[in-house]
Amino acid sequence: MSQRDEFGLIHWITGQRSSTVTGVQQEVDVVRVGIGDDAAVVRFGPNDEQQHMELLLTVDTMVDGIHFTDRTMSKEDVGYKAMSAAISDIAAMGGIAKTALVSASIPKTMDQQLMYDLFTGLDQSACDHGVKIVGGDTVSTTGPLTLTVTITGEVEKNKAILRSGAQTGDVVFITGELGLSAAGLDWMLNREELPMKDSIRKELTILKTFHQRPKAQLQTGRLLLESGVVTSLNDISDGLVSECYEIAEASGKNITLFEELIPIAPELVRYGVLTDQPGLSWVLYGGEDYQLVGTAPGIELPRIQTMLYEYGIHIVMIGMVNESKPNQASEVELMWNNEQRALLEKKGYNHFGGEK
Amino acid sequence: MSQRDEFGLIHWITGQRSSTVTGVQQEVDVVRVGIGDDAAVVRFGPNDEQQHMELLLTVDTMVDGIHFTDRTMSKEDVGYKAMSAAISDIAAMGGIAKTALVSASIPKTMDQQLMYDLFTGLDQSACDHGVKIVGGDTVSTTGPLTLTVTITGEVEKNKAILRSGAQTGDVVFITGELGLSAAGLDWMLNREELPMKDSIRKELTILKTFHQRPKAQLQTGRLLLESGVVTSLNDISDGLVSECYEIAEASGKNITLFEELIPIAPELVRYGVLTDQPGLSWVLYGGEDYQLVGTAPGIELPRIQTMLYEYGIHIVMIGMVNESKPNQASEVELMWNNEQRALLEKKGYNHFGGEK
Repeated sequence: MSQRDEFGLIHWITGQRSSTVTGVQQEVDVVRVGIGDDAAVVRFGPNDEQQHMELLLTVDTMVDGIHFTDRTMSKEDVGYKAMSAAISDIAAMGGIAKTALVSASIPKTMDQQLMYDLFTGLDQSACDHGVKIVGGDTVSTTGPLTLTVTITGEVEKNKAILRSGAQTGDVVFITGELGLSAAGLDWMLNREELPMKDSIRKELTILKTFHQRPKAQLQTGRLLLESGVVTSLNDISDGLVSECYEIAEASGKNITLFEELIPIAPELVRYGVLTDQPGLSWVLYGGEDYQLVGTAPGIELPRIQTMLYEYGIHIVMIGMVNESKPNQASEVELMWNNEQRALLEKKGYNHFGGEK
Repeated sequence: MSQRDEFGLIHWITGQRSSTVTGVQQEVDVVRVGIGDDAAVVRFGPNDEQQHMELLLTVDTMVDGIHFTDRTMSKEDVGYKAMSAAISDIAAMGGIAKTALVSASIPKTMDQQLMYDLFTGLDQSACDHGVKIVGGDTVSTTGPLTLTVTITGEVEKNKAILRSGAQTGDVVFITGELGLSAAGLDWMLNREELPMKDSIRKELTILKTFHQRPKAQLQTGRLLLESGVVTSLNDISDGLVSECYEIAEASGKNITLFEELIPIAPELVRYGVLTDQPGLSWVLYGGEDYQLVGTAPGIELPRIQTMLYEYGIHIVMIGMVNESKPNQASEVELMWNNEQRALLEKKGYNHFGGEK
């Protein structure tokens, strides 16, 4: 078989199965949104007018050596991040996260204190996000530590913000600051010994925290849903460009990002100077910041920005949604100097390709 | 740290966590039953009188080399069994299984056709049980194939059948026939080359199917719930004695099983003769049959038996629930000749002890 990326492979494996539900359903019995968005949207209880909420379901797996290493993450960090990453998929739907199930495949040689640390991290993140851990499964494995976190949440009926609703003319916005997690990882893996002033070193250690202890943007997701005008939303787990491609493809549109509008955090600028690396590439391809990227009509953006600003949440416009060319795959491009354009590579974390 | 069994270890790891909910809750906000039963029971949507259903959540993980091997299971079998095993936890609550999330950690060297086969098995079991696969996560691993299946179901408010409701004087009953899966595994691992008549060989191959393609007893669970008198219920994944201990411990009771009342399937009797092994030990300790064991007032049993018989489902009484001794751990004993008694070892599948 030829090379496939993860999405193509999953599509091949799951397609045409009688039990499997993919994408947005026109006629809703139980499942409104199946495989292909951040979380599945499911009807629950009697299918009547009195039911005002839908269920959100999502699962996320992290494997030692693939998604984290001992060099950069304590077991507490691993637990914290696995929980946050799974909860982030609920934020990306505008939902309320409620409960978690934790499945852990534990190497036979793993010290029990490390298992305790792992669950401490899971617990801390669950607490920080208002999620209750209600069950799980713990098995032993001959392989690496593998953590699977399932989150259930809820969202008002028919209100979940999907990836597929972006409209031509919408603006593309992001929340918070991107690239910090990737820079933190780079710092820990490659440059912790770099000579620099203590004051700068102290400031830069903040980057590590973004990598080790990310938070899901649940409140932001709720506020964006409550605004009533956000047309699509995605959490940035695999990198900004990769998530923009997901929105563009699900919506059948193209996206143009404006380089001059993409914010680069001061820590990232400073770290870029020290290490002679451009901050922009971390912002575009870094991933694991678990901020949100979405689309909305431009006319509504100032109102949303003002509303979120009152909660201390900053969102900024970074691009536009355009028509895609007939019979062509969706594209995400970068524009600068108001005239120069370059098609952005999809990249992002592809477990079967290995490139990031 | 000293040796702990899985339950003790999990209790140590998860105990006293602020996010973690264990056992049956007196005051229900979101979680009615947390860690410690077959599935968690969670309130969903507005907490009002109009909400007639509760959510059931359960997760189950199977690891290559620990829970299955290539010698005895095709990848289709593995998928089928992983899905059935997870759904079985919903049956054990008397619930309706609705949706599944599948997380697969795939070895980098695994052929894509085998992944396809795996999902074929998952799909077949989901179809057989009326469950929709609505999402998942697929990652690569340097370790063995690891499958985590999360099932969501629903059950009428306050009606889920827990492990903790067994009353002194109740009878203990089982559904269907036990030990067939374990005998099937024994057959495949040790005795496929055993000389025997073709007619017997043909008959005995049925044992393999019980091991490779188990079904969850969803309909039985529903009927037992509808009877309104079943006081506790458990699915038999780890072995009859182990599941009886779980009911006895959760209910604070002892259980006596009557040897002469425990049915042994004809295939098991015949296989026992051929292999010079007693069928009873497979019934008591075999596991992975995914039948149900439960308790109910004796006076009600004939009515339940008659009701289920109409659906082609056979349940039989095999024991009694007794008071436990003050300040002592719950016990499960075997009685025979109406006078002789022996305490049954807990055993069952303990991933951290390794014994079965």
